Amino acid sequence: MELSRLSMNQITADNYSLREVAEACESEGIKWIGPWRHKVAETGLKESVKIIQQAGLKVSGLCRGGMFPAASKAERMANIDDNRRAIDEAAELGTDVLVLVCGSSPNRDIDAARGMVEEGIETLIPYAEQANVKLAIEPLHPMFAADRSVIVTLGQANDMVERLVSSQVGVVIDVYHVWWDPRLYDEIKRAAGHIYGFHVNDWSVPIENTLTSRGMMGDGVIELTRIRHAVESAGYNGPVEVEILNSDLWKMPYKEILKRTKQTFLEHV
Amino acid sequence: MELSRLSMNQITADNYSLREVAEACESEGIKWIGPWRHKVAETGLKESVKIIQQAGLKVSGLCRGGMFPAASKAERMANIDDNRRAIDEAAELGTDVLVLVCGSSPNRDIDAARGMVEEGIETLIPYAEQANVKLAIEPLHPMFAADRSVIVTLGQANDMVERLVSSQVGVVIDVYHVWWDPRLYDEIKRAAGHIYGFHVNDWSVPIENTLTSRGMMGDGVIELTRIRHAVESAGYNGPVEVEILNSDLWKMPYKEILKRTKQTFLEHV
Repeated sequence: MELSRLSMNQITADNYSLREVAEACESEGIKWIGPWRHKVAETGLKESVKIIQQAGLKVSGLCRGGMFPAASKAERMANIDDNRRAIDEAAELGTDVLVLVCGSSPNRDIDAARGMVEEGIETLIPYAEQANVKLAIEPLHPMFAADRSVIVTLGQANDMVERLVSSQVGVVIDVYHVWWDPRLYDEIKRAAGHIYGFHVNDWSVPIENTLTSRGMMGDGVIELTRIRHAVESAGYNGPVEVEILNSDLWKMPYKEILKRTKQTFLEHV
Repeated sequence: MELSRLSMNQITADNYSLREVAEACESEGIKWIGPWRHKVAETGLKESVKIIQQAGLKVSGLCRGGMFPAASKAERMANIDDNRRAIDEAAELGTDVLVLVCGSSPNRDIDAARGMVEEGIETLIPYAEQANVKLAIEPLHPMFAADRSVIVTLGQANDMVERLVSSQVGVVIDVYHVWWDPRLYDEIKRAAGHIYGFHVNDWSVPIENTLTSRGMMGDGVIELTRIRHAVESAGYNGPVEVEILNSDLWKMPYKEILKRTKQTFLEHV
């Protein structure tokens, strides 16, 4: 698809600084970036804003808020506070999207953890509204249900968005997390009007590490173009982030990572 | 739960022969066994039947048929033939359950592969009927969608069972594959009347290998007793197979594997 919609999610070049990635984006004609909070913290928020502006980049979204469930009320409140800071950072960086990776269960009671996620997001809505930042729930692949996100299907995220009845809350669709779902295309349709982000990469067998084995676009089995068309038919025409956690890719020079990102994006999405 | 319902799925002690596992079952007072075809082939079918009878064991189900999708019609027909042999072996072993691991997609078209699965099962129904063997679809965890099974949720398996309208076709519920599903308890209810097997183990973080990192009951986060009760409420009161693919467990002496299986089953299921 067209280069103008490519956004470089910073974790795709996680070993490099925001400045390096931003400057390489500029060289490659990439117009968007998706920073992560740990990289922004490393560089400093004000400096990050400056770097992004100087490179002529727009910010597609900030990764990430979320991680709501915790064993005690005090910890859950601390998590909410941290999410407020994430909302502030998103606003400061000039994006209206905060990606939420919702967190795992502190014990075996997964239903309770799901309740904590919903309660956490609900609590954040007024603050997010004031900051003009959307809370974008990213359902993760079910293989992360125990350690990263009890929100594991787009259907479940859509249910939550419907219950919360606020245009402040929506979803991010990442192909890696949802491609396997027999209900995918129905749920993409249902998400129309509250899709706040779209992430691409690929699923390449074998998955040697659940977190860091993601493939480059075209390396795996995901029907990227089909899913992209469905997301567009549901009304989303914003930036498309390339988000690839891959330990081999991370070892490459960042200029090479960006070149490959751009090339495979143009060819396969 | 009670020992009388424990079935030792043979892959839990995959490095040992059918004879060793059957005799150890007898020593431990285990009444059921769930053999795998590759182990039966190793021992020989007739000899396997004899060993199982001599150890006073009943067979809860045979693992496994399935693997329907393939690129060519000829290959798909060969797969059907292999499933007919699996049905014969199940009948010969004295079980009326053949577990189906349905297979992956030969290319990126996952919908087409799902169609091939349904067509394959439909083709087998008359043969299974004659042999009095149930075809039990085992939805696998979505992390296996690319390499083992395009059937990835209990809801999807239930949909297929309903479309096929034959009491010959049902499901096997394995906690490892379904525990994460927000629709799990609704779908267990919906499966009432066509649950032909129930498998237990646990999900223990980190999953270092998607295939061989399964935990012993109690080692992980799965609400085993809750799921077991739901399955019983849906009318299933048959044998409960312990099916654990775990590379560390496999290194242990088989008598020790069976002792631990029994102990954790009695404590945690």
